[in-house]
Amino acid sequence: MDGDGISSATPTEEMNGSGNLMDFLDEPFPDVGTYEDFHTIDWLREKSRDTDRHRKITSKSKESIWEFIKSLLDAWSGWVVMLLIGLLSGTLAGVIDLAVDWMTDLKEGICLSALWYSHEQCCWTSNETTFDDRDKCPEWLKWAELMTGHSEGAGAYLLNYFLYILWALFFSFLAVSLVRVFAPYACGSGIPEIKTILSGFIIRGYLGKWTLLIKTVTLVLAVSSGLSLGKEGPLVHVACCCGNLFCSLFSKYSKNEGKRREVLSAAAAAGVSVAFGAPIGGVLFSLEEVSYYFPLKTLWRSFFAALVAAFTLRSINPFGNNRLVLFYVEYHTPWYMAELVPFILLGVFGGLWGTLFIRANIAWCRRRKTTQLGKYPVLEVIVVTGITAILAYPNPYTRRSTSELISELFNDCGALESSQLCDYYNNPNMTRPVDDIPDRPAGPGVYTALWQLALALIFKIVITIFTFGMKIPSGLFIPSMAVGAIAGRIVGIAVEQMAYHHHDWIIFKNWCRPGADCVTPGLYAMVGAAACLGGVTRMTVSLVVIMFELTGGLEYIVPLMAAAVTSKWVADAFGKEGIYEAHIQLNGYPYLDQDEFTHRTLATDVMRPRRSEPPLAVLTQDSTTVEDVETLIKDTDYNGFPVVVSRESERLIGFVQRRDLTLAIKNARQKQDGVVSNSVVYFTEDAPQLAPNNPQPLKLRRILNLSPFTVTDHTPMETVVDIFRKLGLRQCLVTRSGRLLGIITKKDVLRHMAQMMNQDPESIMFN
Amino acid sequence: MDGDGISSATPTEEMNGSGNLMDFLDEPFPDVGTYEDFHTIDWLREKSRDTDRHRKITSKSKESIWEFIKSLLDAWSGWVVMLLIGLLSGTLAGVIDLAVDWMTDLKEGICLSALWYSHEQCCWTSNETTFDDRDKCPEWLKWAELMTGHSEGAGAYLLNYFLYILWALFFSFLAVSLVRVFAPYACGSGIPEIKTILSGFIIRGYLGKWTLLIKTVTLVLAVSSGLSLGKEGPLVHVACCCGNLFCSLFSKYSKNEGKRREVLSAAAAAGVSVAFGAPIGGVLFSLEEVSYYFPLKTLWRSFFAALVAAFTLRSINPFGNNRLVLFYVEYHTPWYMAELVPFILLGVFGGLWGTLFIRANIAWCRRRKTTQLGKYPVLEVIVVTGITAILAYPNPYTRRSTSELISELFNDCGALESSQLCDYYNNPNMTRPVDDIPDRPAGPGVYTALWQLALALIFKIVITIFTFGMKIPSGLFIPSMAVGAIAGRIVGIAVEQMAYHHHDWIIFKNWCRPGADCVTPGLYAMVGAAACLGGVTRMTVSLVVIMFELTGGLEYIVPLMAAAVTSKWVADAFGKEGIYEAHIQLNGYPYLDQDEFTHRTLATDVMRPRRSEPPLAVLTQDSTTVEDVETLIKDTDYNGFPVVVSRESERLIGFVQRRDLTLAIKNARQKQDGVVSNSVVYFTEDAPQLAPNNPQPLKLRRILNLSPFTVTDHTPMETVVDIFRKLGLRQCLVTRSGRLLGIITKKDVLRHMAQMMNQDPESIMFN
Repeated sequence: MDGDGISSATPTEEMNGSGNLMDFLDEPFPDVGTYEDFHTIDWLREKSRDTDRHRKITSKSKESIWEFIKSLLDAWSGWVVMLLIGLLSGTLAGVIDLAVDWMTDLKEGICLSALWYSHEQCCWTSNETTFDDRDKCPEWLKWAELMTGHSEGAGAYLLNYFLYILWALFFSFLAVSLVRVFAPYACGSGIPEIKTILSGFIIRGYLGKWTLLIKTVTLVLAVSSGLSLGKEGPLVHVACCCGNLFCSLFSKYSKNEGKRREVLSAAAAAGVSVAFGAPIGGVLFSLEEVSYYFPLKTLWRSFFAALVAAFTLRSINPFGNNRLVLFYVEYHTPWYMAELVPFILLGVFGGLWGTLFIRANIAWCRRRKTTQLGKYPVLEVIVVTGITAILAYPNPYTRRSTSELISELFNDCGALESSQLCDYYNNPNMTRPVDDIPDRPAGPGVYTALWQLALALIFKIVITIFTFGMKIPSGLFIPSMAVGAIAGRIVGIAVEQMAYHHHDWIIFKNWCRPGADCVTPGLYAMVGAAACLGGVTRMTVSLVVIMFELTGGLEYIVPLMAAAVTSKWVADAFGKEGIYEAHIQLNGYPYLDQDEFTHRTLATDVMRPRRSEPPLAVLTQDSTTVEDVETLIKDTDYNGFPVVVSRESERLIGFVQRRDLTLAIKNARQKQDGVVSNSVVYFTEDAPQLAPNNPQPLKLRRILNLSPFTVTDHTPMETVVDIFRKLGLRQCLVTRSGRLLGIITKKDVLRHMAQMMNQDPESIMFN
Repeated sequence: MDGDGISSATPTEEMNGSGNLMDFLDEPFPDVGTYEDFHTIDWLREKSRDTDRHRKITSKSKESIWEFIKSLLDAWSGWVVMLLIGLLSGTLAGVIDLAVDWMTDLKEGICLSALWYSHEQCCWTSNETTFDDRDKCPEWLKWAELMTGHSEGAGAYLLNYFLYILWALFFSFLAVSLVRVFAPYACGSGIPEIKTILSGFIIRGYLGKWTLLIKTVTLVLAVSSGLSLGKEGPLVHVACCCGNLFCSLFSKYSKNEGKRREVLSAAAAAGVSVAFGAPIGGVLFSLEEVSYYFPLKTLWRSFFAALVAAFTLRSINPFGNNRLVLFYVEYHTPWYMAELVPFILLGVFGGLWGTLFIRANIAWCRRRKTTQLGKYPVLEVIVVTGITAILAYPNPYTRRSTSELISELFNDCGALESSQLCDYYNNPNMTRPVDDIPDRPAGPGVYTALWQLALALIFKIVITIFTFGMKIPSGLFIPSMAVGAIAGRIVGIAVEQMAYHHHDWIIFKNWCRPGADCVTPGLYAMVGAAACLGGVTRMTVSLVVIMFELTGGLEYIVPLMAAAVTSKWVADAFGKEGIYEAHIQLNGYPYLDQDEFTHRTLATDVMRPRRSEPPLAVLTQDSTTVEDVETLIKDTDYNGFPVVVSRESERLIGFVQRRDLTLAIKNARQKQDGVVSNSVVYFTEDAPQLAPNNPQPLKLRRILNLSPFTVTDHTPMETVVDIFRKLGLRQCLVTRSGRLLGIITKKDVLRHMAQMMNQDPESIMFN
């Protein structure tokens, strides 16, 4: 916004001309109407171009059977694209899951019976695996054992430690190098850029084939390297790349930037759907968080794409459990009113974490952009990976992959659970069924786990701040959820033990009698995860729906909602922006957000030319010469020019785009006889009355947009902002009593909003 | 639209003036800016009024602590309103559920131990109830037993039959009389009207206290009378009445029609939330089906209101099972790919049923409006109730309440199920756990049930067409779901028996081996219900989410989605309108729907005055006299007048509302000395230069809207429609080269759209 964006993504748009609405059927000049890179699209124009195309097909469809079939195919092409997106993004997600699984385990060891098996698959297929030692089987060898033959002892530990770090460094180096060399756009989570693209901005190549390929590969590498990042955000980017890819199959979508964005919105839904196995949550995420223009038709299609994607993923079955969802949990105990207190506290924690993370991460990213730091992205990744691996290996909760960690934290301790977190003293006389375990005192394993978890919490909080924003694919969902899940599990165990040891306290008396199973620490982990994710992203409805799809039960929706809403309130009190909006601002993308504009400025305060500036560059309808036009084009860099009746009356008749004007004149100079420098250019129906010795005039009415958007100079800026946002305009002309006064572009609006925000930051607090 | 609306609801709007945007801080005249009944609101104006109010509070809040607290209260009032709506609508839903339960059972008998107990509660509290005969206990007496002492035999049956009919007639007579006498707006489902109101229309009293009270009472009566109707739609209306009620507590909402509609959207979500126990489905329903303007802030608030409402309902626990949802089901078997074929067939059935229902119901309602039939609403209700009761009693599946029927159809047959539908031949050697029952041959009970269900299906299909639209509260969800559930269960049993008897058929071979439990007829019922509901209402995402919340598992989302999407496609092929849109059209409400407008007309084709008509009534900025203005007001019924520089130049400077003009002149005549009939009225900053003998001029600039919305005459109508829809305009002025040509009102747009639609009905098919 204020020019500190990275050079490759700084919008260079100045004043973009609106298209000529009615002339697209005969497209007179090649390339008329496409947009340049880093420019904003005109939604109204895209929409009417689509209507024209549609009208043409409908009228043609009556001519022959073949045309009728073509029109049917055209009508169904949207669904076909959705189907393809679902299939491809589901497949890619499955492949990524499998590859990540294998490569994460590769850091620790290898399966001798089949090199391509992950640890779990390896022991699963082994005959010598017992239920109690699911993780141990002779086929699976740690590196030290393979190399030295010893699996125990300090030497073996150090060798394993060293190889773990080495693999991590290798993966991350490969990832960052691939990104640097082949597809610079493949870095980051991609969601801020996709939000900007969906709002109508053009970033060529951001959703291209190379980005798709490299992002898929490097995502696997980045996640496997053990860095504190997740695959959810990048999967949305990957799905959007798939969407863009399939758009090019149908001219309906490839030639219309507005329609293309409908497809991309649906693709984003498919991305979240496969990331979590939550199709409805995906649709809501696309609606709440990502999309800008979301008509009902898109809702149905997103829904379909998300469904196909989830279904494809389930067929691939990467987790080997026939479950759709990433973290499947089943709890056996209801929750009680009194538990809302810790849940709300977790919400507060989530909100504070969100605020802390956003501030610290943005400060760090700004430093990266403005100092020498940004010049060594490869080194940065190597250093962060090294630190992560060195600190992560000794702690069993950070050594494994973050999603496994979350999965274990969410889990309820059944009787058969062998994890350290489930090391409770069991009553030997217990005769209850396995599902219904009364509350028990924690054993030494739980206490060990507690302090390990506390260390893991601090580690995750700090390292995630430095990880997000590096030049590798990095999602934020999983690390945020991990922070929340650890905090939640700690609180959960604390409440559980408190309840066990103090059944007589008033707060426990009513619902937690001795022998009853009344506190589920796994639920606390889930609530904490929701709270932290909510604090960072400010999602609410979609977040709860995703969590709800994970647990698969309405039972726990109230705790989740309470935590999500609290976390949002707390985080909002410190600043309205979620992490994605903060990154959009940091990068200076022209994104018009949904916040209300509440200042009392008028259109006249924002429009250009300002009082001190030279008057607006305009064309007259029938008295400008070809030479004048060429001079105007050469001397200015505006993207379009208003056309007025005459300089005296200043009455507006239309708007003409720079690009169209240049092409039209070039064309005429080449092909039309008699068009010379002092030919008069006219935009009226009939040629103007000229002296007989004048050269032949040039008619340009067909490139004139006869319905430019106008507001009066007294229009309040809040209305103007609303119009820009809802109609997706590029620019708007300002008139008073029918006279043209000036112009407001989307960039002017954004600049004005930023100015107002900085002037009076308090005013946005009470929305 | 074309004047055939019921007289009380026909819009009388002609040309509504836009408000003066900047003058509301000092509100110069009382009542300026409120709307009349059956008029359309101006969203832009409401929005900027709210911003002004907000700005005032923010600037005041810096003056003192008290003002600061007031500003905080104001900021939180939205959440308070949501809380109150949730609490009240949850409570009302609970009370309605309890009352319906009791009164439905009252038609058959009474509980002697406690008169206010329903059948289930009565036997639940009895000590003599056994598990096998849950429905029989000595405390519960059928009417015949109570009166004659005999519980068996033809006499008792006939007496019970007669009393059943009598009670039904009594309930429905009471319901229709209450509606007729106290609150005519309490009839119907209310959803078409709420959609219209949310789109910006004013119907005074539609959401009033009387409507709330009467609708709640008559809803209980109508449902209890056994008519083929449900409580879901009316519950949305009741929740919206609650919303409107609480709006009046806060001037933020009561004085701003735009803000009020945000609250009403959230209330609609709360209504669906309590109707089904599906809070997320409720929010999506409000978003997809009901709301017009749904900013993200509303999404969060709706979510909160829906949560509170669901939670309140759960605390009341009307179903006595601690379950939130209306139909709780749990299935034990997964579904298989091959089953998608019957599921899609059910989708086709649902689509056909939706089309049939909408066409037949609209035809019948049109007949009711245009013939003598409409004059006897009480008689109509009595006759339909009589027929319903006479036909329903003999069939056990129609005698009970429709929601009980659906509940039974959805149920999976466990080993303990005693219902007729679960009368299978069990293998006596079965040693499996109760949940895992292999497939079994159907017993005679199932075959009896099958033909009873077939009869019930025909009965429900026919009677629902005549029931929906009568002058009592009537929802459509439950009857639609019942039709689908019956059809689904029949198909389900057929498939199940086919699989049992033909394990060797290719289609069953892969997934249905002998002894496996492979087909769940209850799931078919659920899929059928979703398909039929989808066919009638054209919901998709919200429908699946509601169903998903009922089953509480992602497992069955694919069958539900497949059926919902198929049903929508099939139904859409016969006509784009859902039942609510069809009723909106039938009643001629000014509702601008989301469908795309694809015709090539221009603003100039729609604007008035037409070529043959007298010129537009305009005021000049400084040459009209008070008398001229008064004549203009008297002679025309337009709601506002454009103000131009002079009649010759026709350059537009603003727009003034009729209402403001009338008040201002009346005021000036009374209070301002020297204002006489030939005083000049001026709208400029400075008084015009007048001859010294002229009377004192009257300045009216403060009621002038200086930023009227304009488009050029060449603007395509699709853009104009888009602008009206997205910005919520009441009218728009048409100019050419700065000259005022005419005006387009929302009504003109709607009329034009209807004309275009009738001209070329085919063109909408390929959207």
